[in-house]
Amino acid sequence: MEKINFTIRRGGAADLPSVHALVHELARYEKAEHEFTASVEDYRRDFEAGYFETLVVEAGDKIVGMALYYTSYSTWKGRMLYLEDFVVKEASRGQGIGQALFDAFLEEARQKGCRLAKWQVLDWNEPALNFYKKYQAVIEKEWWNGKIFFKAAP
Amino acid sequence: MEKINFTIRRGGAADLPSVHALVHELARYEKAEHEFTASVEDYRRDFEAGYFETLVVEAGDKIVGMALYYTSYSTWKGRMLYLEDFVVKEASRGQGIGQALFDAFLEEARQKGCRLAKWQVLDWNEPALNFYKKYQAVIEKEWWNGKIFFKAAP
Repeated sequence: MEKINFTIRRGGAADLPSVHALVHELARYEKAEHEFTASVEDYRRDFEAGYFETLVVEAGDKIVGMALYYTSYSTWKGRMLYLEDFVVKEASRGQGIGQALFDAFLEEARQKGCRLAKWQVLDWNEPALNFYKKYQAVIEKEWWNGKIFFKAAP
Repeated sequence: MEKINFTIRRGGAADLPSVHALVHELARYEKAEHEFTASVEDYRRDFEAGYFETLVVEAGDKIVGMALYYTSYSTWKGRMLYLEDFVVKEASRGQGIGQALFDAFLEEARQKGCRLAKWQVLDWNEPALNFYKKYQAVIEKEWWNGKIFFKAAP
């Protein structure tokens, strides 16, 4: 595989269709397209309202990866940056892009004066768990997620 | 036990010492005081900067409970409200305060046009799990938390 050149930069409103397409690709791969109900318009409105920020990976003139995150808060530690989603296009993997993107996310957390960064990983995802082990991340196994879904708001 | 009167209202900067004290009480109870490093000053600065919001429960002239939450974002569903912490003083339990507080949090999520509300619960916490069951909450058991802590930022 040829080594590709890539750049990581902060994503803007113009990148949201590409970010949405990357999430779509993953939902399709997981055969869960019906669960993916947020539209590009939702992303646009909520990005402008400050709900989240992104980092995007550019290779040539294409977006081949993205990290979507937002500030959150730990009552025990203080400021926290939460990595909600983190995707590298399948064809662009094995090039160190994921690591560079995760590093950029951690740097963003430090820049914002955060005391910690948090994310979630599926318990069966060995490659991801090994990846996070290299960062000496703390993996907590005793918390379950609770969720209540509302009827689609306008 | 006598039935007490209580009011739930949005918390302001003036309530942060009480919110901080409730978190402290819980950390002490869990024998984890050394893990609780965020100061009231941190809370003040970060509340003013919009990192989180609170609901507080007033009974008489005392704050006997609080919910601390912030907006977050689901790439699949859109706007999400995240309940980070939720405490009712031990002496004030068994009066329906927890339920009223959780209901107020859910109402807040609806008001903000959120598609879902999310929180975490410890896998051994049967009373909490039974409480959430009444809401027909979805409990996800297959996600682990990843965390990286930074040296204390100023």
